[in-house]
Amino acid sequence: MAVITLLTDFREKDGYIGIMKGVIAGIAPDANVIDLSHEISPQNVREAAYLLGRSYPYFPVGSIHCCVVDPGVGTSRYGMAARLGDHYFVGPDNGLFSILYHEQLALDEPIQMVALSDPTYQLKKVSRTFHGRDIFAPAAAHLAAGVDILQLGEPISEPVLLNLPQPQREEDEMLGEIIHVDAFGNLASNIRFTRIPRQSAVRVSLGGLYDIPLRKTFGEAYTGQIIAVVDSFGFLAISVVNGNASRELGYGLGEQIRVKFLSA
Amino acid sequence: MAVITLLTDFREKDGYIGIMKGVIAGIAPDANVIDLSHEISPQNVREAAYLLGRSYPYFPVGSIHCCVVDPGVGTSRYGMAARLGDHYFVGPDNGLFSILYHEQLALDEPIQMVALSDPTYQLKKVSRTFHGRDIFAPAAAHLAAGVDILQLGEPISEPVLLNLPQPQREEDEMLGEIIHVDAFGNLASNIRFTRIPRQSAVRVSLGGLYDIPLRKTFGEAYTGQIIAVVDSFGFLAISVVNGNASRELGYGLGEQIRVKFLSA
Amino acid sequence: MAVITLLTDFREKDGYIGIMKGVIAGIAPDANVIDLSHEISPQNVREAAYLLGRSYPYFPVGSIHCCVVDPGVGTSRYGMAARLGDHYFVGPDNGLFSILYHEQLALDEPIQMVALSDPTYQLKKVSRTFHGRDIFAPAAAHLAAGVDILQLGEPISEPVLLNLPQPQREEDEMLGEIIHVDAFGNLASNIRFTRIPRQSAVRVSLGGLYDIPLRKTFGEAYTGQIIAVVDSFGFLAISVVNGNASRELGYGLGEQIRVKFLSA
Repeated sequence: MAVITLLTDFREKDGYIGIMKGVIAGIAPDANVIDLSHEISPQNVREAAYLLGRSYPYFPVGSIHCCVVDPGVGTSRYGMAARLGDHYFVGPDNGLFSILYHEQLALDEPIQMVALSDPTYQLKKVSRTFHGRDIFAPAAAHLAAGVDILQLGEPISEPVLLNLPQPQREEDEMLGEIIHVDAFGNLASNIRFTRIPRQSAVRVSLGGLYDIPLRKTFGEAYTGQIIAVVDSFGFLAISVVNGNASRELGYGLGEQIRVKFLSA
Repeated sequence: MAVITLLTDFREKDGYIGIMKGVIAGIAPDANVIDLSHEISPQNVREAAYLLGRSYPYFPVGSIHCCVVDPGVGTSRYGMAARLGDHYFVGPDNGLFSILYHEQLALDEPIQMVALSDPTYQLKKVSRTFHGRDIFAPAAAHLAAGVDILQLGEPISEPVLLNLPQPQREEDEMLGEIIHVDAFGNLASNIRFTRIPRQSAVRVSLGGLYDIPLRKTFGEAYTGQIIAVVDSFGFLAISVVNGNASRELGYGLGEQIRVKFLSA
Repeated sequence: MAVITLLTDFREKDGYIGIMKGVIAGIAPDANVIDLSHEISPQNVREAAYLLGRSYPYFPVGSIHCCVVDPGVGTSRYGMAARLGDHYFVGPDNGLFSILYHEQLALDEPIQMVALSDPTYQLKKVSRTFHGRDIFAPAAAHLAAGVDILQLGEPISEPVLLNLPQPQREEDEMLGEIIHVDAFGNLASNIRFTRIPRQSAVRVSLGGLYDIPLRKTFGEAYTGQIIAVVDSFGFLAISVVNGNASRELGYGLGEQIRVKFLSA
């Protein structure tokens, strides 16, 4: 039973997600369809790319990630499907899967990419504004039902890739930025630690706030304190204990974060 | 694996939807339960009827649509189940399925309708306020498990039907109204185009706004422009490009929309 | 196909729920995962305990309830799993399952409880802040896949239990409190009626409001009327007909409610 994840900016109110699942059920009735999020900020491809990038490793090998954040719907761009290592991606060719792509490329994993050009694998009537229903859900479902990715359309080799900001390493500093604000206002950055530094060894600052202490857990801090933590995906994040950092500090997506490593 | 869709005004906070799925899992463990929407405006039967009407064709033949928008819960009305062509409907007898009914009637498809009067197919204790759990979810699940619709209760022949406003055709004009406002503020009308008119051939007005240009895609317009489009369900809709038409224009459900066809 | 329910305070925006389902799909691909609610007030263990307590009886025997409302995440507390009669519970050992526990204890049903101490049944890397993904979802999935609960870790005998307020019975009165406010502002109390009293036999008061009439259904009252009803779970609740009692009356969780039984 193949897993299909859905990641969109559609919200759940209007039935669009349910309709995509109806289309999938008609093609791949045994697929296990899992909602990743439908509350991406409208048309924010970068936010979706980050969310997919940090989430996909927790899904089984062979999962098909159907992502529809699509400011260009109705223009001439094709949709695409990609096999990236052991995961599949279906969606507009606008950079949504940039992180998967770079990670699988770095691992020298097999990569196959096609434009969704074969109408056999689309709904009979394709609208100008709801490719999630007419093109992407059917493509994901056909993959789940065992269709080979190369049947979905013509191979492509130069997908659109986002220019995602990479943390800058300077002598004794790392410079990054806030890339995700969660439902509780926690501010996650793009600075990743493979090994969590000793608390006394770093100084963290965010925008105009300096010397934010690094804590291992919320339990080590007091209510209302502004702290830096390494979040559950391994990224440096800024939180207000039992509070909403985004609202209380007034910082959001794109804000600069800086980690200074102190000499021992 | 039968598909059961759920359409309610319950919201997801209180566990009501999860409980309905628990009841279904106890009766039809293999059913594929799909949320259509749980954010219908409270007790707005008409809004739900429209949403179901435009959504159901995308679900597989044999799907069971369990709809609970039920201002009359606890009064003497029975619930009902209907077979309408190749789809099933379960819910209160208050007009929720009016569009399916008329469409299947027009197609001369088989129609069977029963009152949900047999307690065998209900929970043992039926509350006065949560028939979604006690009557409708069990009925939908028993249908999914293979029970014949005629076993659920006594046949009925005169279901409640909504008086849904039909677009008026005048000489060179169509008059309709706004029937759905989506999460992004787009205003969908009840005017349906089987063939999309040439842009230069029509004049669209909404309330006090005249000469709204018809565009094929958002890409043909500029940010902030008020445009008319044919939405992905084939209905004429009014949008503000990258904006929220409902909020910015101050129009909502019921507002009059008018299309004037120009002579060539 | 075992049922796993998910109850958290995570909201759906950030993909956390989807990720937990991805982890489950990797371990127990056939599990039927059902969302109970993800909108528990942040860190409100008591609210979650009540919601679980009233909901679990509607799920099939053998269901596994995975609950993550976890103010203590990252501290030294272990997670736990419990078999309580015919239901399973997985989550932090903080009292979330108190109602199930007391109910099964009263029924003299079998109870088994273990600390989730065996890393075999956890993700390889366990974070300090997302035990839902790293510990609880894997434990629930392994139970669903047939692992015996006693394999998950060391038995425990003294779980944390919430001190849930019990309604006080006085001579001719019951005193309780509001324990749930639903999405429509209805105020549910902890006063349960096994038999619904005659309307003329009781006087209900809430905070400073006296003589609230008890009604069998909303249909018996007029729009805007403040009424008491026995809700679909058997608890006394206060509603404003077609209104929002919480907002309009200014009462919420913890407010005192009083029922006076009149002599015949």
